[in-house]
Amino acid sequence: MPRLILVRHGQSQWNLENRFTGWWDVDLTPKGETEAMAAGELLKDKGVVPTVAFTSLQTRAIRTLHLALEASGLAWIPETKDWRLNERHYGGLTGLNKAETAEKHGEEQVKIWRRSFDVPPPVQEKGSEFDLSTDPRYAGIAIPQTESLKDTIARVLPYYEEAIAPQLKTGETVIVAAHGNSLRALVKHLSKISDADILDLEIPTGQPIIFELDGDLNATERYYLSER
Amino acid sequence: MPRLILVRHGQSQWNLENRFTGWWDVDLTPKGETEAMAAGELLKDKGVVPTVAFTSLQTRAIRTLHLALEASGLAWIPETKDWRLNERHYGGLTGLNKAETAEKHGEEQVKIWRRSFDVPPPVQEKGSEFDLSTDPRYAGIAIPQTESLKDTIARVLPYYEEAIAPQLKTGETVIVAAHGNSLRALVKHLSKISDADILDLEIPTGQPIIFELDGDLNATERYYLSER
Repeated sequence: MPRLILVRHGQSQWNLENRFTGWWDVDLTPKGETEAMAAGELLKDKGVVPTVAFTSLQTRAIRTLHLALEASGLAWIPETKDWRLNERHYGGLTGLNKAETAEKHGEEQVKIWRRSFDVPPPVQEKGSEFDLSTDPRYAGIAIPQTESLKDTIARVLPYYEEAIAPQLKTGETVIVAAHGNSLRALVKHLSKISDADILDLEIPTGQPIIFELDGDLNATERYYLSER
Repeated sequence: MPRLILVRHGQSQWNLENRFTGWWDVDLTPKGETEAMAAGELLKDKGVVPTVAFTSLQTRAIRTLHLALEASGLAWIPETKDWRLNERHYGGLTGLNKAETAEKHGEEQVKIWRRSFDVPPPVQEKGSEFDLSTDPRYAGIAIPQTESLKDTIARVLPYYEEAIAPQLKTGETVIVAAHGNSLRALVKHLSKISDADILDLEIPTGQPIIFELDGDLNATERYYLSER
């Protein structure tokens, strides 16, 4: 039966600084690297063997994938990187830390952006410090100016259906190394979590989440590999 | 005009120990990691930007690719791993060092295996310590029991024509991180080097070699990036 492994990237520099990161390409901290390697060692110890890998176009997720695969002796499995697995785009909040954001926009407003399903943060201004419109990795892609979680889900799920589900259907064990919100999209879909509840679901960093699936890719089980 | 970048993996543990490695999956040494990162920094300094990557199924080449791409800020470019870019399979010599090999087979014989174009070393015995027939990465692949350089070329070039050349023809800048002999195959083809001369061509580790190509993928220039 098909199996899907989700791994959220380990700690990044901006996780550490408590800043909204979104699509900005921040690298892992040494702690984040250690988390990624530990995820790979756990896969190996538990005999869970991914055969196909997917990740985003963001260094922190790509390196998490690579470090985890290296630690489990599986650096050689095929991997595909796609922008649709990127983190939620935080628009004009990108680069701000929570204190700055509360100062600039007010506590209540920040809570709405962080906890609502479909209210996006303000758009990122063209030419702002964190504008990615000239980044060659996104050439030909309509880079969002901001995203709600709903918007993120609306690009993650079509990619899941188009690229990931067909691999699962042929019996591959798929590993996806990605981000808090792109992984939320997958968990919401597979575990049928409501719009209201999904924001309460925290995806821990570097902790492999396993979905056991039936032939129609319905989830029969979801668990943290560390708990088995 | 299309451009092809070749990078031989940095020093591996068995390079250091002077042992025949072939398809055995030996990791980089810390020096090898440094060489790989330096290759990426050189690409960045010289403004050479690969857009598509290829590597073998062997950890030392894959990690060389990843470390080089990370150092040049390009971890996100698409990459394909294929066994046909693997090192020459050294058959029964795998795991032996040169002194042991000379002791076992005689100096003259070793010279023939190392320097001849089409004489393969003795086959690797089934069930030997370095037999890869149960390695899942080679499932479905007819693993060679031994290879001459001619045999290596006979699987590298079809892969080049099938997978790499089409990318070059669409104008991509392709980076190939691979091995001494799989890269010799490409240099021989592109620089039209004779069977007799190709074994005298040493590919240095971690030194990007650039081929400038015309629209029909004929080489107009070949140089070490460090010399520009």
